Amino acid sequence: MKAYTDLSMDELLALKNKLEAEYEDIKGKGLALDMSRGKPSKEQLDLAEGMLNIVKGSGDTDTLDGLDCRNYGGPIGIPEARQLMGDIAGVSAEHVIVHGNASLNIMFDTVARSFTHGVLGNTPWAKLDKVKFLCPVPGYDRHFGITEYFGVEMINVPMTEDGPDMDQVEKLVAEDESVKGIWCVPKYSNPQGYTYSDETVRRLADLKPAAVDFRIFWDNAYCVHHLYEEEENQSQILEILSECEKAGNPDMVYEFISTSKVSFAGAGISAVISSKANLEQIKLHMNYQTIGHDKLNQLRHVRFFKDMDGIKAHMMKHAKSVRPKFEAVEQVLKESLEGLNIGSWTCPKGGYFISFDAMEGCAKAIVAKAKEAGLVMTGAGATFPYGKDPKDSNIRIAPTLPTQEELALAAQIFVLSVKLVSIEKLLQLNHMNQG
Amino acid sequence: MKAYTDLSMDELLALKNKLEAEYEDIKGKGLALDMSRGKPSKEQLDLAEGMLNIVKGSGDTDTLDGLDCRNYGGPIGIPEARQLMGDIAGVSAEHVIVHGNASLNIMFDTVARSFTHGVLGNTPWAKLDKVKFLCPVPGYDRHFGITEYFGVEMINVPMTEDGPDMDQVEKLVAEDESVKGIWCVPKYSNPQGYTYSDETVRRLADLKPAAVDFRIFWDNAYCVHHLYEEEENQSQILEILSECEKAGNPDMVYEFISTSKVSFAGAGISAVISSKANLEQIKLHMNYQTIGHDKLNQLRHVRFFKDMDGIKAHMMKHAKSVRPKFEAVEQVLKESLEGLNIGSWTCPKGGYFISFDAMEGCAKAIVAKAKEAGLVMTGAGATFPYGKDPKDSNIRIAPTLPTQEELALAAQIFVLSVKLVSIEKLLQLNHMNQG
Repeated sequence: MKAYTDLSMDELLALKNKLEAEYEDIKGKGLALDMSRGKPSKEQLDLAEGMLNIVKGSGDTDTLDGLDCRNYGGPIGIPEARQLMGDIAGVSAEHVIVHGNASLNIMFDTVARSFTHGVLGNTPWAKLDKVKFLCPVPGYDRHFGITEYFGVEMINVPMTEDGPDMDQVEKLVAEDESVKGIWCVPKYSNPQGYTYSDETVRRLADLKPAAVDFRIFWDNAYCVHHLYEEEENQSQILEILSECEKAGNPDMVYEFISTSKVSFAGAGISAVISSKANLEQIKLHMNYQTIGHDKLNQLRHVRFFKDMDGIKAHMMKHAKSVRPKFEAVEQVLKESLEGLNIGSWTCPKGGYFISFDAMEGCAKAIVAKAKEAGLVMTGAGATFPYGKDPKDSNIRIAPTLPTQEELALAAQIFVLSVKLVSIEKLLQLNHMNQG
Repeated sequence: MKAYTDLSMDELLALKNKLEAEYEDIKGKGLALDMSRGKPSKEQLDLAEGMLNIVKGSGDTDTLDGLDCRNYGGPIGIPEARQLMGDIAGVSAEHVIVHGNASLNIMFDTVARSFTHGVLGNTPWAKLDKVKFLCPVPGYDRHFGITEYFGVEMINVPMTEDGPDMDQVEKLVAEDESVKGIWCVPKYSNPQGYTYSDETVRRLADLKPAAVDFRIFWDNAYCVHHLYEEEENQSQILEILSECEKAGNPDMVYEFISTSKVSFAGAGISAVISSKANLEQIKLHMNYQTIGHDKLNQLRHVRFFKDMDGIKAHMMKHAKSVRPKFEAVEQVLKESLEGLNIGSWTCPKGGYFISFDAMEGCAKAIVAKAKEAGLVMTGAGATFPYGKDPKDSNIRIAPTLPTQEELALAAQIFVLSVKLVSIEKLLQLNHMNQG
């Protein structure tokens, strides 16, 4: 197929007429499709059905060391849940505090605590004139939302297939004491599905920040979320905590994980993983904040998954449900857009998203066009701090929630929207060149 | 029996010898009893056994309006849980946001949010030179812990049987703009079991604070925790939200409730109840903080309790288990200490605690003496801000956790400790008078 960028005005106009007819046709169906958020499908949620009844009755609520999960106590999590979450992250249980159903909540509280009480005895961020965070882009909107809410100045750092541009990160961190953190989704990143290379992880662990209270916010949300069973098709990542230790920066990272996309999105368990010193501060804070998180739900999780093998086997069931959806979207993109020179996209081997880059200045219009035809996408710009994509180019595709049938329609609407908006753009550009 | 204060030195010394023998005897048993925290007993936790399996399977996880509780969504709580928690507090569901398993966490977050983001557009407390809270004493140590952690200056206000001394509260709130809050446990208060009178509630609702961002922190932890079935033996309290509305102070109160001592102490649900404007700010905050609380556990609660009648019936089962424990302790106190002029105590009709006032300067020594004989009590001083009871007099008794048999022993150790420490004190005083 000929690239749109090589078409004449007349060819573009003719194509536009044809595609507009197709678009009106599909719009007439009055569809209501949702590819906006990384939500698991019902089929995926059903996989953990056995967890609902696994704690059977009153005689069945004790941990291995005899703590009754129904009562108060055990604020840092039951030992077997700390073990399981540690296994998932590749660290020992002593580095783990298990929390409630949302790792986002731990991240928020970590930022909030740094503002009100400082990091390990350093000045509370609320008392500083300026606090900055590095934000690899495109990235996760809820990360950026937290730092925006606290008035943090966010600095874009471009992502590569190996992770954030480390030359920039090293420079920014070393020269500016107000840079206090970096948001990372290191494995199957949101939205591109990239996994940080060993070199990237080591360079991060080896950072020489100007700020002693600089922290890496390591949101390992998709650490076990492979789409393929064969090991060569699974991304691996270095364990950051031990890398930081080796580099002489033992306290530089907070890692966050959860089972939100393993068990239940709304009723999983989460954990923060860090050094002894950082965990001591978190424990002190929790001592005032809560009487402890829901231990019955922790018990359900360890009873159901048992161990890391159980987690791995379960994730392969998810993969079986999710992989065809990713592949279906990728196939439509390939068949419909390859060679047209109007967009590029990632083909991740794990995680929850496909990242699409349209021609500059087209993302917002594409999302609007799709919406008009009944397909809700993640808002354009959402993958950037302040919701501002400087190129108005990136669109996040979340293929998990729709059924296969819905997905086929959704992908069709999406590529039509991309084509129509791109043609519009090219016509404008041609017009300007002629003007 | 003759009051200890009327005994001669010789009589006191003779009594001391006799009681010391008794004490050594019981100490020799090597007991390990715990009356330190308000923890429900296993028997109480068993009452909610049916909740563990009430959400049966994958087809059984939807709310009445079709939200799948396993997935993301519904950040302010499922409608039926908002309704149930509203019924418990006596407000409509629109005033309710359901949270996770700990109302303490909501209180902490409310203080934290006020520090970082201010209250309804007012200056964040972190930017103020001074923030003060009024603390009715004796009170709940975890309340005082939160405000101490945030560097709030706490001002003791004496409790009466009708609630805090309102003359003092009105004066302090009206004259000092840095007074931003008051901690209240309005019904079956911790530790005295007092319930605020209608007049107290109305005077609170009618406060004229110097600070526009002054808030009443209304921890209605024991709102349904009656010990007696007959209505004349149940305390009632005015609904504060509507009283504040009537008084022209609609935004002045945050109310907190939970099912921690209704269903499971570690795995209940909680709620914040407030005006529309306050809830809007909380929703905005939650929008950044979490993807929503555990809705499956909310669903378990509404399925199990159904409605307010279900809650009431369930609480009568608790009463049946807990009432004899309160009465047993009260009987030992009466039989052993009445008329001795060395202590007084409350006889609550609900809640979780009995409050004991020893002779001045004796509480710490009594708690230490009890501990030596194998009985752990709440630390003396814990019922006051900064852990400092100015009179070293108040001791909180938590009778729910031990079995009836353990309780008999615990009460025996306690009264022996009270007697011995009081005699020691009287001997000292006599000695000083003679000296």
